[in-house]
Amino acid sequence: MQSAVAPRTQLAGAQGRRAALPASVPRRSARAAAATPTARKLCLAARAHASPFRDNSPATATTMDSRLADSPPATPAPPAEPRTKSRVVVLGSGWGAVAFIKNVDPRMFGEDGPYELVLVSPRNYMLYTPLLPSAVGGVVSENSIVESIRSLMHDKGRYYEARATGIDPASRTLTCVKQFCEVCAARMDNGADVVHTDVDHTFTVPYDVLLCSVGAVSATFGIPGVYEHCWFLKSMEDAQKLRKHIGKALEQAALPDVTPEQRKKMLSFVVVGGGPTGVELAAELHDLMTEDVAREMPHILDDVSITLVDGLDSLLNSFHAEIQTYAGEVFNRSGINLRLGCKVTAVHVGKIEVQRKDGSADVVPFGTCVWATGIAMHPLVAALQAQLPAEVQGSRRGLLVDPNLRVMGSQGTIFCLGDAAVTGATTKTALPPTAQVARQQGEYLAALFSHHRLGLQEQPEPATGDLVPLPAGAKPFQYLHLGSLAYLGNQKGVMDLPFKTPFLKTLRGYLGGQTWRTLETFMQISPRTRWMVFMDWVRAAMFGRNVSDI
Amino acid sequence: MQSAVAPRTQLAGAQGRRAALPASVPRRSARAAAATPTARKLCLAARAHASPFRDNSPATATTMDSRLADSPPATPAPPAEPRTKSRVVVLGSGWGAVAFIKNVDPRMFGEDGPYELVLVSPRNYMLYTPLLPSAVGGVVSENSIVESIRSLMHDKGRYYEARATGIDPASRTLTCVKQFCEVCAARMDNGADVVHTDVDHTFTVPYDVLLCSVGAVSATFGIPGVYEHCWFLKSMEDAQKLRKHIGKALEQAALPDVTPEQRKKMLSFVVVGGGPTGVELAAELHDLMTEDVAREMPHILDDVSITLVDGLDSLLNSFHAEIQTYAGEVFNRSGINLRLGCKVTAVHVGKIEVQRKDGSADVVPFGTCVWATGIAMHPLVAALQAQLPAEVQGSRRGLLVDPNLRVMGSQGTIFCLGDAAVTGATTKTALPPTAQVARQQGEYLAALFSHHRLGLQEQPEPATGDLVPLPAGAKPFQYLHLGSLAYLGNQKGVMDLPFKTPFLKTLRGYLGGQTWRTLETFMQISPRTRWMVFMDWVRAAMFGRNVSDI
Repeated sequence: MQSAVAPRTQLAGAQGRRAALPASVPRRSARAAAATPTARKLCLAARAHASPFRDNSPATATTMDSRLADSPPATPAPPAEPRTKSRVVVLGSGWGAVAFIKNVDPRMFGEDGPYELVLVSPRNYMLYTPLLPSAVGGVVSENSIVESIRSLMHDKGRYYEARATGIDPASRTLTCVKQFCEVCAARMDNGADVVHTDVDHTFTVPYDVLLCSVGAVSATFGIPGVYEHCWFLKSMEDAQKLRKHIGKALEQAALPDVTPEQRKKMLSFVVVGGGPTGVELAAELHDLMTEDVAREMPHILDDVSITLVDGLDSLLNSFHAEIQTYAGEVFNRSGINLRLGCKVTAVHVGKIEVQRKDGSADVVPFGTCVWATGIAMHPLVAALQAQLPAEVQGSRRGLLVDPNLRVMGSQGTIFCLGDAAVTGATTKTALPPTAQVARQQGEYLAALFSHHRLGLQEQPEPATGDLVPLPAGAKPFQYLHLGSLAYLGNQKGVMDLPFKTPFLKTLRGYLGGQTWRTLETFMQISPRTRWMVFMDWVRAAMFGRNVSDI
Repeated sequence: MQSAVAPRTQLAGAQGRRAALPASVPRRSARAAAATPTARKLCLAARAHASPFRDNSPATATTMDSRLADSPPATPAPPAEPRTKSRVVVLGSGWGAVAFIKNVDPRMFGEDGPYELVLVSPRNYMLYTPLLPSAVGGVVSENSIVESIRSLMHDKGRYYEARATGIDPASRTLTCVKQFCEVCAARMDNGADVVHTDVDHTFTVPYDVLLCSVGAVSATFGIPGVYEHCWFLKSMEDAQKLRKHIGKALEQAALPDVTPEQRKKMLSFVVVGGGPTGVELAAELHDLMTEDVAREMPHILDDVSITLVDGLDSLLNSFHAEIQTYAGEVFNRSGINLRLGCKVTAVHVGKIEVQRKDGSADVVPFGTCVWATGIAMHPLVAALQAQLPAEVQGSRRGLLVDPNLRVMGSQGTIFCLGDAAVTGATTKTALPPTAQVARQQGEYLAALFSHHRLGLQEQPEPATGDLVPLPAGAKPFQYLHLGSLAYLGNQKGVMDLPFKTPFLKTLRGYLGGQTWRTLETFMQISPRTRWMVFMDWVRAAMFGRNVSDI
């Protein structure tokens, strides 16, 4: 359908592309002119005195377009100009990508800088993932833990809201697709047929250097029934759906003519995964039940059960041993059922089959089951890996990178960071797939790109798998662990402290809970989200959680 | 499917019902016991020391159930007791219903009061409708303008989240249905088949007195294509969908390979309806474009157009004449295209057909069209009307009520308020379908029910259409108009003042805008929403609007 949407300028191969910017990709300078303070003031000033919107006469529109538009008018492309800038394309809008665009020197992307920047992501916001369980519980608002990518980028570059469907390392081209909703009807509950005229809008984005920060997807380890019967907690959409579903389950259970067995079933919440996400989700569910549900719907409280299932023998396995024990004790006191050492073998409608350590099988019934464990390679990363030399790639966890985060076998044109990157050959030597690692990697690359000019210089063709040497002085990435935090419910939290002393290794209990709350507020992405998360705690303390369907 | 979900106790007709409460409807006293401070403290105190959730052993569960549950255990119903309370059932959770439950005397619904209260609504929140356009624009958060019905009811009665599908005035029974989502899968974007095991859970609620406050639905006046191609702005779901759609349209327009014609089309926003909703939506869209879009996406601003279409010759037709003129001037200065005196005759993909006053036809193209005009009778109200004597009913706008808001022909057992009620035989004598009228009617009925005991006394069968006389001293409802407000964008607003003096009839401009903002904050439903809307203005002033997809 793409041709129906936009006449696409074909790229004349890698060589042609290097000689001239294709017509489908406007110059950075055109955009820079539009984004200069003067141009913006003009737009804003217009509002006070005259219409800021043009009428529909084509003459005006074309004039304005050619000055401001992201795409050129439908006239033939201007003659080729020698390229002076390296195009850096960032894929993703998570921790790694945002740490990069926030920390990179804006002068490098200005009128006279060596780079132009494009960010491509299907989500036009960065999500502060550690507070996702709190959003499910209704303590923080969903809007409070996301920040718009456009406001994070400022004038550093362009942003395209689209899904990358392919990376071609040979021609250094990214293929992107966006479902265009040219006209879509709204009324679905009216019985009227919904007319969607969605079309795939496909376009290509050439790059000189690619930063692949697409993260990972939920892993189900091939266990049958997980996709069909479990809720997930990886994206904001997941959190929104899960929060509404929990509210619906509570309201269902309060209806007349519901048998006690049905009610007990509806109010059985099972969380699979004893890592920070699973633990915090169980904790937030516990707080929601004992505080808000106890106040508003006391008659259903006794039918509520929360169960946490994990194949390992303790919670928070990546934390200090004494925290693991403490977390189990807190959950036991809170009435959260722990099914540790139970490996899930299958999920069916309303029940999980588990296998205990001793080999015996058991069944855990549920009304709502949340799959909060495991990550797998992003399909885009897997497809890219298949195009790279098998001698240097082949990890099942992601793209192997060198100490400078360059993807092995990409000849230094692709950098990879975050959950998509594998920093070591074995699980032990590789860094964990955490937000903290991705953020530090993004900051590292931001410094690398700010201090060195990468990407445009004519590079010699290296032998397969060899990397183009970085400029002298480019240090390798070094990870500095700053500690780990988790919330356990009931105002209690835990923290692994990064100090190497024999004492003061951990924080626990109420002090840990307050530390968690304070740090999760101050580590927010932007001043806006910092303010909003802080106000959410205030609001929750004053008025309770959001338990409505909205 | 209902029998699969719950064994339903059949009602033995109206006589049997009056002799004993059916098993499907628990006593008020059982619920009251659960909701007493002592019982609630018990639940909350449990959290500090022991599990507030029971284990799954049936013994414990049944004990707790029989004390606290909303439904009785599956054992046979207890022997009949003489009824001492009138059951008042409120249908709806909008302005009228909430004004009633907020203002009614709680002692009337206590242990010794003459009533028991049940509220049935498919939405477990009250929506502050006047700020719906502001929620679309992203100034106020969606969660800030809704308040949970359960927290509004406190301990006054029970709430069932269900859709009423039928009212039987002969047996005084309400039929309700709720889609049970016993197990539903979450992952829809994964390609896995989605397994929904939704079942219809049907139950009946008998009443002695019914308060019908279900409101109205959007009217399309039979114009072809409206349902298929327009967005609506009546519910919070409508507002959420519309806000996300607008964000999507903006992101689409910023993609490469989009032609100027496509971009112009995508960014053509058309609002049909020149009443307060349509005017405020156009105003909020204008503010969104000139403030946030101008800052974050200046290159697409010039392709944005906002058009308002209405069949009448002026905006805000129910306001003072000088406000109508002023609103038109403000919109002209803001660059909002006005197509007044244009009756919509059909809506097609991407264009509206209109007919001008002189009979000539014209076409208004759009990328997004919002239908913000007209209301029609709720299907439930239409079905009830058909069961009442045609001699006393028959308005096409709603249920005719007497001066005490009793539905004509219902023998005083059904009260109707808000948009569903028609207070006069002609459009001129009837009250307008506004939030203000509904709220005052709810307050009036709250006072009526608090001071008189209605519903249980054995009433003589009156002649068709006659109403059972109210107790002496029950005054008729009187509406007191307190003025009207509207926001025009760019910090400007208007207000019709209720004073009957020849001067100071209206407020306009910046002062009107600040008055609008202040009043919309202070008139909020609860302290929580008042606080949150206030904080939303602060947040919008500090950090701008929410323009992300969340």
